[in-house]
Amino acid sequence: MSDDQQQNDFRQQALDYHAFPTAGKIAIALTKPADTAEDLALAYSPGVAEPVREIALNPDNAYKYTGKGNMVAVISNGTAILGLGNLGPLASKPVMEGKALLFKRFAGLDSIDIQVKHRTIDEFVDTVANIADTFGGINLEDIKAPDCFEIERQLIERCDVPVFHDDQHGTAIVTAAGMLNAIELQGKKLSECKIVCLGAGAAAVACMELLIKCGALREKIYMLDRKGVIHTRRDDLNEYKLLFANNTDMRTLEDVIEGADLFLGVSGPNLLPPEALALMADKPIVFACSNPDPEIKPELAHKVRNDLIMGTGRSDYPNQVNNVICFPFIFRGALDVRASEINTEMKLAAVEAIRQLAKEAVPAEVLKAAGVDDLSFGTNYIIPKPMDPRLLPRVAGAVARAAVESGVARIELPEQYK
Amino acid sequence: MSDDQQQNDFRQQALDYHAFPTAGKIAIALTKPADTAEDLALAYSPGVAEPVREIALNPDNAYKYTGKGNMVAVISNGTAILGLGNLGPLASKPVMEGKALLFKRFAGLDSIDIQVKHRTIDEFVDTVANIADTFGGINLEDIKAPDCFEIERQLIERCDVPVFHDDQHGTAIVTAAGMLNAIELQGKKLSECKIVCLGAGAAAVACMELLIKCGALREKIYMLDRKGVIHTRRDDLNEYKLLFANNTDMRTLEDVIEGADLFLGVSGPNLLPPEALALMADKPIVFACSNPDPEIKPELAHKVRNDLIMGTGRSDYPNQVNNVICFPFIFRGALDVRASEINTEMKLAAVEAIRQLAKEAVPAEVLKAAGVDDLSFGTNYIIPKPMDPRLLPRVAGAVARAAVESGVARIELPEQYK
Repeated sequence: MSDDQQQNDFRQQALDYHAFPTAGKIAIALTKPADTAEDLALAYSPGVAEPVREIALNPDNAYKYTGKGNMVAVISNGTAILGLGNLGPLASKPVMEGKALLFKRFAGLDSIDIQVKHRTIDEFVDTVANIADTFGGINLEDIKAPDCFEIERQLIERCDVPVFHDDQHGTAIVTAAGMLNAIELQGKKLSECKIVCLGAGAAAVACMELLIKCGALREKIYMLDRKGVIHTRRDDLNEYKLLFANNTDMRTLEDVIEGADLFLGVSGPNLLPPEALALMADKPIVFACSNPDPEIKPELAHKVRNDLIMGTGRSDYPNQVNNVICFPFIFRGALDVRASEINTEMKLAAVEAIRQLAKEAVPAEVLKAAGVDDLSFGTNYIIPKPMDPRLLPRVAGAVARAAVESGVARIELPEQYK
Repeated sequence: MSDDQQQNDFRQQALDYHAFPTAGKIAIALTKPADTAEDLALAYSPGVAEPVREIALNPDNAYKYTGKGNMVAVISNGTAILGLGNLGPLASKPVMEGKALLFKRFAGLDSIDIQVKHRTIDEFVDTVANIADTFGGINLEDIKAPDCFEIERQLIERCDVPVFHDDQHGTAIVTAAGMLNAIELQGKKLSECKIVCLGAGAAAVACMELLIKCGALREKIYMLDRKGVIHTRRDDLNEYKLLFANNTDMRTLEDVIEGADLFLGVSGPNLLPPEALALMADKPIVFACSNPDPEIKPELAHKVRNDLIMGTGRSDYPNQVNNVICFPFIFRGALDVRASEINTEMKLAAVEAIRQLAKEAVPAEVLKAAGVDDLSFGTNYIIPKPMDPRLLPRVAGAVARAAVESGVARIELPEQYK
């Protein structure tokens, strides 16, 4: 089969998967009996009046008598759908339903997608804040930068439940975990690393902010947008890019890449030329996360540099940076202690839990699911595999404990996380 | 066991039903395989990009590739929860989840509840309109009058999907069906009936409007609110009550009940005194729908008038006026033809389908579920039982056909309804 044919085949398979035998991927299931008139008298009128009264007396009873505590809303306005751009709220629905599927599959969380149309940022925020109490947590998704920063900031302030923009923080957590492991393997120190970040969108900003929290120095970070290096003499920077404006005369990727220890690509296909890679410091680390086509192909990169550790967004290469190893579990941990927010401590706890897991012996079932004979901590295995069942207890547990310790949990740590 | 003990028992049973083994009544289920990395590549990145592209090209493809077309949102602000009053959005959650349970149980519709907090009517409308495209239809619930009228009017105008306030129209459809059958049995003509409606809230207004569409004369309707008869010389009427202002000198229930053929109670317990009932015309019809305690107890009413046909909101008396025999099926029919709205033709079709079903022989399984040996059209059986499986094809089919015939369907009539 030709590549074209293969692509067409996959395309049709993806459409068929979504269309048959029923449209979409998720449905509602009943968790209580609803067969007899007696069942219905408990589920609805008159019995339902009892939990209503209990919740009116104490809002916390919603966690006892309704699905709120296990329900995550996946909310988007469709302004930055995958790498496809601004296609509008409705077109984002398959992605958001997909996210709901992943929440259920990996963390047993019930999750429903909601698409929001709006004119202004304030209107989006109002809409989500007005419905937020329905849910135990809110996962924002595929919202374009810089709107996403302001939206998340306002929603965190206004909502009683955790609000988490996965494109920012999920990506940042997995990237940080992988990078820290790569740095360890390369024998470097994060605070001494020169870092180049190609791309200045939601993921780029969040990754750099989290790396700084892990010990990277802001002044050693060079961020580039479509116009080149973000520096202090540019007058076209929004407030989020401005935080990364570097007081430098360097203007291009070629300028800043020289001697860089870390490269993070969250930009587009083939934007890291092999000549640029050649200029990086000894034992460089390259995360080329543009998907499906990375900033540099791994085969090419390894030809240019044999001292390289590399990650991509793809499942068919080693070291996949995949949010799914984070977001289901960070919400699981947060919801299990009714955290009021997902704070930095919880994010760092997730980073650490993911890092550690990559250093442990891999169970046979994970090897089988990954289609490999062996996985051990090293150049080609710095990030756990998505199908690793240990992620759930480890990451959720670490996040829940961090929530309790940092004072944002509203109930005690559940037994299983002690 | 004493009555108090029985009530406490039921209360505890209802709370336990909602709390164990998991909180709430509904969950998310996956309808597609999500076991292997290959499955996830179809459900999420990269495969999910394909349905995204198709929906961006044509919004109708959302019905093909996502759950939109089978998903109803049950939305409330908690301002009129059951008969309990304004307890706020969150306290309404058990009721809304109960409604979602009924949608699934009776019509196979997926349904999710959403609680909305808001300051103004406009803010509620904006919030719901902004998220409406997510769903195939919107069921409004437990919103106080007169806000509910304005909210529904604006939302119908702004949303592309059907918006239906069940407390109004579900109640009206079932009431009209029962009343028309009662009128037939009593040998009366609706256009000649004097009608007394005790209560002037959402259900009252909707019931009277629908009865008028069935042939009742507006000038023969006497509506009463807490201050008595609604008449043209009152200056405290909102625009919805004003439609029922009667040019009369009568001021009290006792004044207007004399010679009345129909009484509809949507008010409170024991508000129809036996002396008032005694004044009604020959062969009166009384629907005392206050729940759980009707406007007059059936035992008492039948003592006062042996020529009476009576309905209540209770399942333990004959002729229960229960929305569940309507709303799951009216949405099922509307969604199955992608109706842009639920118009009067569809509501009248539902009335007719429910009426007719009560005239047909009842299957053994329905008798068994109802705990009776016999049900046949007559004084004690004018409305089908909730557990009647024929409601789904009959009511949904009638509604779907009416949608097609009245030009609001966006696809052809499905084979099963032809």
